[in-house]
Amino acid sequence: MEIPKGFWFAATASGIKKEGLDLGLILSERPAEAAGVFTTNIVKAAPVLLAQKRLATACPIRAILVNSGCANACTGKEGLADAEEILARLASLLEIAPEEILPASTGVIGQRLPVTKIKEALKTLSKALDPQRAEEVARAMMTTDTFPKMETKRLCLAGGREISLLGLAKGAGMIAPRMATMLAFILTDAALPREFLQESLREAVENSFNRITVDGDTSTNDTVYLLANGASGQTLKPEDQALFKEALTEVCQRLAYLIVKDGEGATKVVRVRLVGARDDEEAFRLGKTVAESLLVKTAFFGEDPNWGRILAAMGRSGVDFAPERVDIFINGVQIVENGLGKGLAAERKAHEEMKNKEFSLTIHLKEGNGSAEILTCDLSYEYVKINAEYRT
Amino acid sequence: MEIPKGFWFAATASGIKKEGLDLGLILSERPAEAAGVFTTNIVKAAPVLLAQKRLATACPIRAILVNSGCANACTGKEGLADAEEILARLASLLEIAPEEILPASTGVIGQRLPVTKIKEALKTLSKALDPQRAEEVARAMMTTDTFPKMETKRLCLAGGREISLLGLAKGAGMIAPRMATMLAFILTDAALPREFLQESLREAVENSFNRITVDGDTSTNDTVYLLANGASGQTLKPEDQALFKEALTEVCQRLAYLIVKDGEGATKVVRVRLVGARDDEEAFRLGKTVAESLLVKTAFFGEDPNWGRILAAMGRSGVDFAPERVDIFINGVQIVENGLGKGLAAERKAHEEMKNKEFSLTIHLKEGNGSAEILTCDLSYEYVKINAEYRT
Repeated sequence: MEIPKGFWFAATASGIKKEGLDLGLILSERPAEAAGVFTTNIVKAAPVLLAQKRLATACPIRAILVNSGCANACTGKEGLADAEEILARLASLLEIAPEEILPASTGVIGQRLPVTKIKEALKTLSKALDPQRAEEVARAMMTTDTFPKMETKRLCLAGGREISLLGLAKGAGMIAPRMATMLAFILTDAALPREFLQESLREAVENSFNRITVDGDTSTNDTVYLLANGASGQTLKPEDQALFKEALTEVCQRLAYLIVKDGEGATKVVRVRLVGARDDEEAFRLGKTVAESLLVKTAFFGEDPNWGRILAAMGRSGVDFAPERVDIFINGVQIVENGLGKGLAAERKAHEEMKNKEFSLTIHLKEGNGSAEILTCDLSYEYVKINAEYRT
Repeated sequence: MEIPKGFWFAATASGIKKEGLDLGLILSERPAEAAGVFTTNIVKAAPVLLAQKRLATACPIRAILVNSGCANACTGKEGLADAEEILARLASLLEIAPEEILPASTGVIGQRLPVTKIKEALKTLSKALDPQRAEEVARAMMTTDTFPKMETKRLCLAGGREISLLGLAKGAGMIAPRMATMLAFILTDAALPREFLQESLREAVENSFNRITVDGDTSTNDTVYLLANGASGQTLKPEDQALFKEALTEVCQRLAYLIVKDGEGATKVVRVRLVGARDDEEAFRLGKTVAESLLVKTAFFGEDPNWGRILAAMGRSGVDFAPERVDIFINGVQIVENGLGKGLAAERKAHEEMKNKEFSLTIHLKEGNGSAEILTCDLSYEYVKINAEYRT
């Protein structure tokens, strides 16, 4: 795996979780420009509040400290003080300023961080830093995730100059398309001005993480960081910017796909495509309502091309449309034409397509040129099991 | 059970469903004034479209024909013609006009009604009419419901005059608080003008059926009818109207409660109460987001007082509030004070309360006098099972 130059990684089991890696560190050899996109939830975790304050200054960033097992959300002033105490300790170990570290937490809401345990573990962590340990950090971020999520991208710019991007993410539950709905860190060794970074990240998130849904719940801790440390020696020229944005969006989209694939209890990934809407925004609202409908998601799980539920979900989306013009396809098999079912033979073929682990659901409104694509998963017994038993 | 005077009932197994009662008839001896409230879903079933047209004229109503097993939704012009053909046949058997019959259907979307079978069954049905068979009609309306839903109310007006109300309902899935989200028929032997009926029904529905949620999905067939035939000989005077509205709301609320209790896979009924909001509308939006959150509903199922999920759901509702002022109680046990957890002992007590089949979740915002109460249920394995297997 091609890792961007000048980033070091370490992870350890600090004891926040009963077992396994739960604390990860990313260090940039040199000061990096940084951008962040955060949850739109009014209830924001302590690390989110802290990071927003840090990114509001022009101070460059040297490190990201992430933990799983505890969200440090709904913990009040004490939660903020806990995070600051931990970051101060890490800063002194790394010989940098506390303001140069961005925090991120994920896990149970309403519990305090075990500060002493974590401070103890920071010594181990700071000594274990290594350019080849990115995957361990991806593992340390996991909660109900079943596999670590990493993507890399090598970008060749004009004149043979090369830069790299690396993305790490965690997902699984509380996933809904409302800003960055999970944790993701994207690192690049290109040199980029902060304003451009923030703009690129906002656009990439809009077209990736904001287009997925697992359960319609938006977390208190959602965070996406983008760090650019310039270690490749390559400063992006204006003519390279479009290429960089494209690569960044691609990395975000691949991570977003992995998050849906690993959605709590998910057995299938479904691409819900709305085409022929009056505009993109209406297409998105329609697609989101379909992609979040429990009845549609349980039908996906049952491999049942139950198009009535799809039309019923669309009908309550708040978007005006003509049901009698709608066509619906599953992996190219048409099951609805002009609002009416194409019959049992078509449904049987669609049922066969739905046995795949991934398929597309395309809905054509024939009203305009608006379109949207949303990634969703099915709703299985396992989702209920995971979330009924999460804390017990 | 005290049945309003002058109504006759019959039900039969016409073969729409593989087995059991699936066709019900309610006949009023004399012409009744009628009111209706229907789904807000843009995709409306044929019986909804037909009934809306019928109620738009001043024509009195004599009968309601209801079937389960097939929603006659997304069936286009053919679906409308099917319904009209059936009603014409019934009208000739009952020697009334087709315009005097209101249709209602519930069941699978996208399938045509078996017209021949139903027309055949109408003969039996019209001969079986009896004032004591209301429960059979309630049974014939059931889809995934596990018990028939009936409520009666006897109302004593000033001067010892008496009238009765009877409500029949079905629910189970596709239940969300967006207008009448199921089928319910309310009958009274009082004499009431149509305008007052419609106004009373709208208000009663707003405070009952629109305050419940099972899965956040709004059906294509939701219908509530209110018929007043005057057979009690009592015409409501202006001073009786408030009393009547109260009784109607009470019947609707009791039916709404039964629908949530019998929600697909539900094991618990939860009263979500929002108090201290800036206004009732914000209280409703907050309560609805909590009551529909999959993470909250699975925590109900797991009897887990997971208040972090409750606060997180509130935070994405779109309503502005101060998390640090929020108090949360389960059956009176306080688990959150000013946005912070009250500790494990409190949670253990709340967990004990959640073992009940019914409990309340009270959320106090301390911002104003707005309040709302929403009835919801938990989300269990069984919901997924029922909806993954529904058509197969």
